[in-house]
Amino acid sequence: MPTFSDFQQARISDLQIEPIILDEPISIDQLPTPALTIDLDILDKNMLKMQSHVNAAGLGLRCHTKMHKSPIIARKQIAAGAIGVCCATISEAEVMLAGGITKILITSPVVTDDKIRRLLALCQKSSEVEIVVDYIQGADRISALAGEMNLNVGVLVDLDPGMGRTGIEPGQKALELVQHIGDACPNLTFNGLQMYIGNCMHVHGFEKRRDKYLHLISRGIETKKLLETNGIQVPVFSGGGTGTYNIDAQLGALTDLQAGSYMFMDVEYRDIGGQGTETFLDFEPSLFSLVTAISKPQDRLITVDAGIKCLATDTGYPEFRDIEGATYHFGGDEHGIIQLNNASREINLGDRLSVITPHCDPTVNLYDYYYPYRQGTVTEIWPISARGRSQ
Amino acid sequence: MPTFSDFQQARISDLQIEPIILDEPISIDQLPTPALTIDLDILDKNMLKMQSHVNAAGLGLRCHTKMHKSPIIARKQIAAGAIGVCCATISEAEVMLAGGITKILITSPVVTDDKIRRLLALCQKSSEVEIVVDYIQGADRISALAGEMNLNVGVLVDLDPGMGRTGIEPGQKALELVQHIGDACPNLTFNGLQMYIGNCMHVHGFEKRRDKYLHLISRGIETKKLLETNGIQVPVFSGGGTGTYNIDAQLGALTDLQAGSYMFMDVEYRDIGGQGTETFLDFEPSLFSLVTAISKPQDRLITVDAGIKCLATDTGYPEFRDIEGATYHFGGDEHGIIQLNNASREINLGDRLSVITPHCDPTVNLYDYYYPYRQGTVTEIWPISARGRSQ
Repeated sequence: MPTFSDFQQARISDLQIEPIILDEPISIDQLPTPALTIDLDILDKNMLKMQSHVNAAGLGLRCHTKMHKSPIIARKQIAAGAIGVCCATISEAEVMLAGGITKILITSPVVTDDKIRRLLALCQKSSEVEIVVDYIQGADRISALAGEMNLNVGVLVDLDPGMGRTGIEPGQKALELVQHIGDACPNLTFNGLQMYIGNCMHVHGFEKRRDKYLHLISRGIETKKLLETNGIQVPVFSGGGTGTYNIDAQLGALTDLQAGSYMFMDVEYRDIGGQGTETFLDFEPSLFSLVTAISKPQDRLITVDAGIKCLATDTGYPEFRDIEGATYHFGGDEHGIIQLNNASREINLGDRLSVITPHCDPTVNLYDYYYPYRQGTVTEIWPISARGRSQ
Repeated sequence: MPTFSDFQQARISDLQIEPIILDEPISIDQLPTPALTIDLDILDKNMLKMQSHVNAAGLGLRCHTKMHKSPIIARKQIAAGAIGVCCATISEAEVMLAGGITKILITSPVVTDDKIRRLLALCQKSSEVEIVVDYIQGADRISALAGEMNLNVGVLVDLDPGMGRTGIEPGQKALELVQHIGDACPNLTFNGLQMYIGNCMHVHGFEKRRDKYLHLISRGIETKKLLETNGIQVPVFSGGGTGTYNIDAQLGALTDLQAGSYMFMDVEYRDIGGQGTETFLDFEPSLFSLVTAISKPQDRLITVDAGIKCLATDTGYPEFRDIEGATYHFGGDEHGIIQLNNASREINLGDRLSVITPHCDPTVNLYDYYYPYRQGTVTEIWPISARGRSQ
């Protein structure tokens, strides 16, 4: 019988991380639906486009892995030039480190001893693991427990962009926290600032989004200057995302970009609008849920085998990759009900259909495996190793 | 290197099904949050109450396992007197059968050969595996493939209660399908009807719910009579759920009840209203997400470590088990933002809080393990074995 600690260890040591290479390639038409598929040609294109973009702007790319939850994809991003990754939780970071990623920023604070001890276990394995802090209480406790283990932890101070979620108020309060870390937290090293302006990423219309973003980030820029005026160096200023990637590049305030969704894209991001375009198409959808038509209860309705346990419901509805005039409604846990209005193709029982996910991050978190393909052929299966690692 | 078929087999053979018995019990205060906990005293009470209720009404209980996804819990329900279980998908049924449950009704139709073959593999292992059919096309194909394997499959004909999701129209069309099964599907046995009126379960107010339900089920009752008039026996009439459990008992039309949520309950069900009561409290919440306060960006706000990857967003918001005046808002993938208005207790950083889930089914589907407890002590961990088995 295991102890609870054995159980926790096994959750890492038993992880499936590496690609499962198939003995014989299969067609995507052989996948049991609902299945989460990746069009690799588009994924590669998105990855290279973002990397060229940040390279040209002199920004680092610290890809957020909360989106794809896969060390396989993270390794591709690093190989393409990313400087490291972000993780939202300690358990995501455990998976990424187990998958060979060593430079990890944990973008959400932890305050309890169990989580701090798991953080320190990660720092012991890689000196490039960093975390954000936003309160004196958390900073003190991490420093104290790190001291017991004779460790040093690199931290970024998280600034609240007015979301009221995490982060300390920019300006004087942030300065006081940074000074406290310097004065009273001997086992922490202040590496810089994080300001992730999540309340801007999905503002519709490029100009509106840019104006709001510039307004909000100005308080972060001021805070950086305030720290420097007080003799504190700020080597890192991390933030930004897919929705502001080109704004950040022009602005030149950040040192690195925390983008994630550009790899997969989704209906939510597509609909925010681009620079001079109705839809945001700088990156193309590469992630698709494959579903099957299983019932036809009424004329102009068709039911598919994917509901709210396969497609996240927090932002809106899935859309078909290549059918016009077919609207997806959620029909409970396991069903989607498709309303047909002069649909651009006929849909029959048994037909397999590709949908763009409404919101990629929480949708990915519903599946155990990706089925990546090129020209319709799947040669390997990728475990979504950090799925469900919300702790 | 495995073939795709090896990979699929491994998804069953590698399953974690049995409880993990801990060497030393732990307190729920030691669980890493977010954690999904079950108050076993309440679970037992709910289970026994429903079982006594159906026993008294002369109904069978065919518990829906799409809700809890756990053969451990299904076995408890069978031991308490349930006649069998329902599964929404083939892959759920595979897990239940692997967990020792042999009497399984699959409540959603399948039409493609890959799913039919998996169904038949289940029927080979247990003659008590049944499935619903709602179209001639699906019935024909199951019968044909069953014929190749010299198998007989028991089927219920699924009736559409006007939801436009799955099911054939009650009345003449249903009769024709049943006659077709008798005449042209030599490898199917017609065992009866299913009519799950999902569009009634959450109607607010007992009287309103009862009136709508009686109206909708009347077409199912008529269909049953129509079949009998045509010399067709209808041994089973399966349907109903937690929201109509007492209506079904009084009505006496169904032979068995497909309830699931009564075991765990959630905010959505609690709010539908009971018989003469504002809230539906016939069954009490036994399932709680345990979350931790990790940031306090503003006065009267506190941020917890559980967002949309831990709590389903399709119906509403989580509520605190034992705090008044604290309102939960989703704050993205990993955060909840709590608004405090004269909260009945102070919440400090690091505090652990229990929330009732907004909708139990899709919330359960986000976690890998249950932490069941009595009086705050966890002695075993239950894998949520069918989590993510939406295929």
